Amino acid sequence: MTLRVGVIGVGAIGQDHIRRLTHVISGARVVALTDVDAQRAQSAAGSLDGARVHATGQDLIDDGDVDAILVTSWGPTHEEYVLASIAAGKPVFCEKPLAPTPDACLRIVKAEVARGRRLVQVGFMRRYDAGYRAMKKGLARGTLGAPLLAHCAHRNPTAPPYGFTSEMMISDSAVHEIDIVRWLFDQEIAAGTVLKPRRTTLGDPNLQDPLIMILEMADGVVVDVEVFVNCGYGYDIRCEVVAESGTVALSDGGEIVITSNGLHSRPVPADWRERFVRAYDVELQEWVEVVSAGDASGPSSWDGYAAAAVVERCLEALQSGQRSTVQLEDRPELYRTPGGTNAVEQSTEGHRASR
Amino acid sequence: MTLRVGVIGVGAIGQDHIRRLTHVISGARVVALTDVDAQRAQSAAGSLDGARVHATGQDLIDDGDVDAILVTSWGPTHEEYVLASIAAGKPVFCEKPLAPTPDACLRIVKAEVARGRRLVQVGFMRRYDAGYRAMKKGLARGTLGAPLLAHCAHRNPTAPPYGFTSEMMISDSAVHEIDIVRWLFDQEIAAGTVLKPRRTTLGDPNLQDPLIMILEMADGVVVDVEVFVNCGYGYDIRCEVVAESGTVALSDGGEIVITSNGLHSRPVPADWRERFVRAYDVELQEWVEVVSAGDASGPSSWDGYAAAAVVERCLEALQSGQRSTVQLEDRPELYRTPGGTNAVEQSTEGHRASR
Amino acid sequence: MTLRVGVIGVGAIGQDHIRRLTHVISGARVVALTDVDAQRAQSAAGSLDGARVHATGQDLIDDGDVDAILVTSWGPTHEEYVLASIAAGKPVFCEKPLAPTPDACLRIVKAEVARGRRLVQVGFMRRYDAGYRAMKKGLARGTLGAPLLAHCAHRNPTAPPYGFTSEMMISDSAVHEIDIVRWLFDQEIAAGTVLKPRRTTLGDPNLQDPLIMILEMADGVVVDVEVFVNCGYGYDIRCEVVAESGTVALSDGGEIVITSNGLHSRPVPADWRERFVRAYDVELQEWVEVVSAGDASGPSSWDGYAAAAVVERCLEALQSGQRSTVQLEDRPELYRTPGGTNAVEQSTEGHRASR
Amino acid sequence: MTLRVGVIGVGAIGQDHIRRLTHVISGARVVALTDVDAQRAQSAAGSLDGARVHATGQDLIDDGDVDAILVTSWGPTHEEYVLASIAAGKPVFCEKPLAPTPDACLRIVKAEVARGRRLVQVGFMRRYDAGYRAMKKGLARGTLGAPLLAHCAHRNPTAPPYGFTSEMMISDSAVHEIDIVRWLFDQEIAAGTVLKPRRTTLGDPNLQDPLIMILEMADGVVVDVEVFVNCGYGYDIRCEVVAESGTVALSDGGEIVITSNGLHSRPVPADWRERFVRAYDVELQEWVEVVSAGDASGPSSWDGYAAAAVVERCLEALQSGQRSTVQLEDRPELYRTPGGTNAVEQSTEGHRASR
Repeated sequence: MTLRVGVIGVGAIGQDHIRRLTHVISGARVVALTDVDAQRAQSAAGSLDGARVHATGQDLIDDGDVDAILVTSWGPTHEEYVLASIAAGKPVFCEKPLAPTPDACLRIVKAEVARGRRLVQVGFMRRYDAGYRAMKKGLARGTLGAPLLAHCAHRNPTAPPYGFTSEMMISDSAVHEIDIVRWLFDQEIAAGTVLKPRRTTLGDPNLQDPLIMILEMADGVVVDVEVFVNCGYGYDIRCEVVAESGTVALSDGGEIVITSNGLHSRPVPADWRERFVRAYDVELQEWVEVVSAGDASGPSSWDGYAAAAVVERCLEALQSGQRSTVQLEDRPELYRTPGGTNAVEQSTEGHRASR
Repeated sequence: MTLRVGVIGVGAIGQDHIRRLTHVISGARVVALTDVDAQRAQSAAGSLDGARVHATGQDLIDDGDVDAILVTSWGPTHEEYVLASIAAGKPVFCEKPLAPTPDACLRIVKAEVARGRRLVQVGFMRRYDAGYRAMKKGLARGTLGAPLLAHCAHRNPTAPPYGFTSEMMISDSAVHEIDIVRWLFDQEIAAGTVLKPRRTTLGDPNLQDPLIMILEMADGVVVDVEVFVNCGYGYDIRCEVVAESGTVALSDGGEIVITSNGLHSRPVPADWRERFVRAYDVELQEWVEVVSAGDASGPSSWDGYAAAAVVERCLEALQSGQRSTVQLEDRPELYRTPGGTNAVEQSTEGHRASR
Repeated sequence: MTLRVGVIGVGAIGQDHIRRLTHVISGARVVALTDVDAQRAQSAAGSLDGARVHATGQDLIDDGDVDAILVTSWGPTHEEYVLASIAAGKPVFCEKPLAPTPDACLRIVKAEVARGRRLVQVGFMRRYDAGYRAMKKGLARGTLGAPLLAHCAHRNPTAPPYGFTSEMMISDSAVHEIDIVRWLFDQEIAAGTVLKPRRTTLGDPNLQDPLIMILEMADGVVVDVEVFVNCGYGYDIRCEVVAESGTVALSDGGEIVITSNGLHSRPVPADWRERFVRAYDVELQEWVEVVSAGDASGPSSWDGYAAAAVVERCLEALQSGQRSTVQLEDRPELYRTPGGTNAVEQSTEGHRASR
Repeated sequence: MTLRVGVIGVGAIGQDHIRRLTHVISGARVVALTDVDAQRAQSAAGSLDGARVHATGQDLIDDGDVDAILVTSWGPTHEEYVLASIAAGKPVFCEKPLAPTPDACLRIVKAEVARGRRLVQVGFMRRYDAGYRAMKKGLARGTLGAPLLAHCAHRNPTAPPYGFTSEMMISDSAVHEIDIVRWLFDQEIAAGTVLKPRRTTLGDPNLQDPLIMILEMADGVVVDVEVFVNCGYGYDIRCEVVAESGTVALSDGGEIVITSNGLHSRPVPADWRERFVRAYDVELQEWVEVVSAGDASGPSSWDGYAAAAVVERCLEALQSGQRSTVQLEDRPELYRTPGGTNAVEQSTEGHRASR
């Protein structure tokens, strides 16, 4: 009854998921590992109880003791491992991005459709955050009317130290907002524009930091997303949806209020780990439960593809300074039925209720 | 020592200012009135202690007992009365708009410059709101670094019942944000764009409600302004400035928290009167003080002109769907010295300190 | 139509009220002054337009040009001037305390009853604070049910530098809470107890700082009041009423939110002036209006007497460590009718509506 | 490496812990069950993978495959099972109360001391709540100075439907505050008093609802605790500690803000399950980790004893209307060393860091 998981790629994020599967959540065990750096794989296996080390991802996928695959290797390798998992008929959880280009994502979508059932879940963990879930529930209740607008902000205290680029502000940071608004509104994104405000002097001068992304949903909802990766003060994620009769927004969180030195203060999370630690836990817990039940839910290959397509067009808009429209392929039937995007919420509700 | 004020136009806003001068603030008295509707002028005078009724605005301005003029007549008549007040060398407070077109405003600016001293104050009362003033002070302190972005929302519960148009969402509603960001950042606006989200079904279907205005300041700060005049739930004005090391925002106000029925709740103001009642009082009190001291401060003719020019370009942008740049005349010396825009804050601080 | 006010006592608080009557509110003029320090009186008169200086309070009260009296002299002298004002049939506003002992207050009550109309208003300005008024309105609406409990805190950043005593924490600080809960609940206080927590090491070691006062209303509502006069961080007044179906509380105010250095922060007022500046203005404005109309409202002699009686019993409780019951005289009819305590709210509402 | 847990008592709370051990947390498995109702035990075992059903608690404790015991049976039976677990040298987690009387708790303390190591953890789950933990950390940082006071409120929407008594408001509800302030301040409680405000008419008229408990810590800190079990509006737990230079308080939580119908609103939890679901999860996860490492932490037998002693004295105070002092036995060395109360926080920190 324990799900036996094989992990491909044991860098920082891979190790974090191994810790989560081993020490935090219930119902799973890491039984096999592989990494491009064999020594790193050995060392990671050392701390686990009898986990096998495989030479290649394909070997791991072929291992009869592996029930499901977790892909946390370098982005460009995702496609190969996800396709192999589908070929093997095994459920696979793939960290974002599903693949680096819309075309690569589409190959995965097509392979999954050909296989005839959903096997792939993409690591858009915000859908498992209690705040966003409460927002979606608040909108679904219907009393606020139809959504018209959303305002988002994605602020990091500092950009990563290595060569972080303006493009990565969209492909690595804002991609989370791209996914979450598709999910919140159950709508595709039809166009994107990128505005370039005055730059902060407190970061890399080559970076267009901050920037504003304007997303237009298929039904006309307009979303503005501020991306500011050197905001200095903390990790601050905001989202307010404006609907016909009211709004719903993430609160500023904070477990406590400290009053001192002339101020009532609530702490801002220091980084994304602190902000979304629970979302990562719940994401993997639900994946283990759903997969163990022979089912699928959560962000699908289609969601990975759509996000990649929007990112590509927003990068185009960043360069051109113009509005870019997004053209998606037709959405296959597989992603419209239970087990598809809409099923996420149902699964969530069921889970909640069972508590 | 009491400032003797003559009021031109005694409709709703004129009567409200008469009430304020008579019953709320100190140091002024309404001594003369005129209105296009002579009977309405008589009736308004009836409740005042010995106020004279004049046949025309010019007569009122010429009245030797009138020290200063308050223009609250129909917008298209403002120019005539303000120019006449300047010609008479008398201080004049003119409700917004200063005049309906940038050209008309510019004629006032030129007349005032020719006269050689500031006599005109325009009724942009938000500069006297405690929240905006605290924001400006917070930015001036310098610890947050340079401003980069601002997010604003201007929400009314319902649009006025008469023929309110999408154009008026800019010229009547968002004009307040146009003025306030010029004042907050001490910068002109260089360009404007208007986005058209999905419309609410709960208002006039001919109205582009909500809309989003994107303003670009001369130094690159980008401001997004949501204007939503049928938001349904209350009168809600938001403003957050994002600077290099932190942000400053209007709080949600509310004097009390009510906890009941599963909710902690803070009231939203019902309308603009409730939200800005104090700003109107302080605006007029400071005008009376400054004018009585033979000085001038607050929003100037130049500010009235700049706002009109930005409104005109944003209306162009609304129609074209394109970005419109704003070209202003050169700013005369008169509006750069104390008594000009910058002096507002000084005057405020002095006022505060004297308390 | 302008109320001609004579001021007895032109120390700090007297001068502040003179400034308010002269420069802030409408409908009044200071025409006469007196002070135990004749030079101080002369100097205060110097800045006013033709105000007369009287040798004694009695002379000022007798002055035919004085319509109403403001008593802001040293507490022990209040009784004499208030009694003389009543004898002269002139409205008198007396800063708290009405008189230093319950007996002295009672003599005023009896004189006023003998005169047959309300002439005295006591300076309990919190009843004019927008927050407390919204709380009272929230309770009056009835949807929260009957009040059962209240939690209050009265925190000053530092105790006054001169010989401030533990007794003054009750008679000077907590007396405001004593009045406000009587007003909020329209109930007398039946008993008091004082608890003595661990003392702060950051103030005068002789001071029982903080202390907790437990007040029991006649109908059983229990109120705990924390008094902490060296809290260090700011001036922080809290009040939450717990009723049968919900609670209503003062919000933490604050016009703005500053986000920086890992914190979302709202400013705490620096001192009582900042916190209650508007309450003082509204208090005096309403007094001028009501008195000019030949009427009376606001905190009455009876309220001054009841507060003094409760203070006396709480001081007893502070010393004994025991619960002290409060025995009040019978409340005269004069204080039960419009123009009495209940009328405050009506007057407020009327005032609001007229805006 | 998986901790094999035996559960004594499979009523609602027992089944909830079984679900938690099986489906939520990592590193444990329920291998044995027993219940006074044999059929209920069988049925609970049915949903588990190979869990044995024992006829008695003693049999379960003696089972060689059971590494650790979870006692969730009826309160009066706790002592027997905990003592038997200690005798068997097996770690035991016992739901509160540890035992119904201070004397019974003391027998457990003595047995554990005789055994020479900590084996018992008591189910005071609030110590694992993120809010209280952040408060304790905020106080430990030292910048707020020494704590002087605390204000707590414990509000339930409705009292349990069966014969809930005023005594149970202390022994079942406020016992959580009794434990949490001992832990927050690392201090014993020296005395208690109970105040009886006006009762709500919306609950059982025989209940003293609400009541206020005044706790005095050994070092003089005074804590007031409002207990209101029919507050109607939700489950609302508040705690503010007032220290020498500032305060720290639980925030009002709430993941989202909904703005509609004239209100900005944050949801209040519906019940204790919703409010403390994470605290229960973390509590049991840490117990499994610590016990698997051969260690002990969290609320000890001593904490169970101290809570019972304070409850007993507060019940005395409820009846007498007088202040009751608390006399505890001398605290054995076992509860002063790592693995004792102080170790909780260390364990927490380590746990956090390891994430």
